[in-house]
Amino acid sequence: MTTITLEQANTISAAAFAKGRDLGLKPLAVAVVDAGGHLISYQRQDGASIGRLQIASGKACGALFLGVSSRTVAEMAADRPTFIATAATVAPQGLIPAPGGVIVVDKDGSVIGAVGISGDTSDNDEACTLAGISAAGLSEQ
Amino acid sequence: MTTITLEQANTISAAAFAKGRDLGLKPLAVAVVDAGGHLISYQRQDGASIGRLQIASGKACGALFLGVSSRTVAEMAADRPTFIATAATVAPQGLIPAPGGVIVVDKDGSVIGAVGISGDTSDNDEACTLAGISAAGLSEQ
Amino acid sequence: MTTITLEQANTISAAAFAKGRDLGLKPLAVAVVDAGGHLISYQRQDGASIGRLQIASGKACGALFLGVSSRTVAEMAADRPTFIATAATVAPQGLIPAPGGVIVVDKDGSVIGAVGISGDTSDNDEACTLAGISAAGLSEQ
Amino acid sequence: MTTITLEQANTISAAAFAKGRDLGLKPLAVAVVDAGGHLISYQRQDGASIGRLQIASGKACGALFLGVSSRTVAEMAADRPTFIATAATVAPQGLIPAPGGVIVVDKDGSVIGAVGISGDTSDNDEACTLAGISAAGLSEQ
Repeated sequence: MTTITLEQANTISAAAFAKGRDLGLKPLAVAVVDAGGHLISYQRQDGASIGRLQIASGKACGALFLGVSSRTVAEMAADRPTFIATAATVAPQGLIPAPGGVIVVDKDGSVIGAVGISGDTSDNDEACTLAGISAAGLSEQ
Repeated sequence: MTTITLEQANTISAAAFAKGRDLGLKPLAVAVVDAGGHLISYQRQDGASIGRLQIASGKACGALFLGVSSRTVAEMAADRPTFIATAATVAPQGLIPAPGGVIVVDKDGSVIGAVGISGDTSDNDEACTLAGISAAGLSEQ
Repeated sequence: MTTITLEQANTISAAAFAKGRDLGLKPLAVAVVDAGGHLISYQRQDGASIGRLQIASGKACGALFLGVSSRTVAEMAADRPTFIATAATVAPQGLIPAPGGVIVVDKDGSVIGAVGISGDTSDNDEACTLAGISAAGLSEQ
Repeated sequence: MTTITLEQANTISAAAFAKGRDLGLKPLAVAVVDAGGHLISYQRQDGASIGRLQIASGKACGALFLGVSSRTVAEMAADRPTFIATAATVAPQGLIPAPGGVIVVDKDGSVIGAVGISGDTSDNDEACTLAGISAAGLSEQ
């Protein structure tokens, strides 16, 4: 498998939304991208703000850009704020330092894409991201 | 109703893909945007090239930018190529002059969003766009 | 195999330069990108102009963007100049409509990257691209 | 000599990778640019993340932008974070404040280019940069 399929992406989105409903979260947006950071699917729930695309995909693509989860990017930003602020200016697909963006790997550990969610707190966003990846039978890096 | 809902957007996408299968088309990508040109949903079928997002949303957002379908934008481009080429450079969400992008209106004729499809010939893309809008019980401008 | 390796990229570049020497061409630049259009390697021969990066990678990434070779993109530009001119404004990694950019596939036909060359005439650039891909034991789409 | 040659750039890259193997580092990416910040060569080892190009070249080009090594840029960022964060937004070729980017000079002290490396810790990246420059018989500023 070299990429997340559209069917898997839709499973991820549906499971993430189900998790959000279970937790009573605000409306969410889910971006699923391939290993090159190109969008496979995007779903924005009614009431979520218009910038959720850039935040959700910026978490996913920023994770791919640096090769770590956006939670780790957030930790890097706490340690070295100017490094991450300047890296964001040269990240062609965005770089958002907040939990919720996770790299997805296949059985061999090869990167096949990433998922980013935005809409509630970053910790809650990340819980939904992980629920989505798990529901699709995939693994996070 | 002031915007296409996510549920309607997913109905549009599913119906567009069904139309594509009926017609034996290449893999498609479907972008559904709100009246402000902001993505509500995006679905890229397996095998569609990575640029389908920009082409599909550029058809939808270009239609909103000029207030006509992307088929009409294509006709304008045939008549006045430099006007459309330069307009594209200032259209912040893209402007693609090829059929497949259609403005969606409510019962009162108010704009509630747009749909753009890319992947096969532009005429086939547009046929899928119209099938999707119709399946969701919505109307094109 | 999900991507062109660095070793293959270096073989492609060396073979392309050898072909250029055989044909007595001007200094060349060779860009090898993965399936997402992200650079794996770039080599600019002494004397090649500074913009060769953008032209070479724009041929490769534009091919991936539309899912066809940059020769076909050039044919599309001849038929529909405004479509390609506007598509270029929304292609995040560039879109150059001239021969020399070729998509690389694995044995199953899956896209694993692309190669773009710039420096001499577009036809000569393309001959070097194809020589490079062949030398690495890979196939063009 | 007014610029690093491609042959020297390839020597730099090979020596940097050898140093990385000796030290047991993660996959690296090496960007070699001319005095104008334009890429002469780029090599990304298998497994390095897709954003290494922007980080590596942002170290090299940021060094040229301010006329000091990217280690000094990092020190400036610690002292004056907002200055560097805002400078990065106007640095057309990127400005990354972390060690690993070094200006290369000829015998007379004239700038002939720069090298930037990314992939492991910034200190390790810089060690590889210096090993590469030394292997090519060149000097850092």
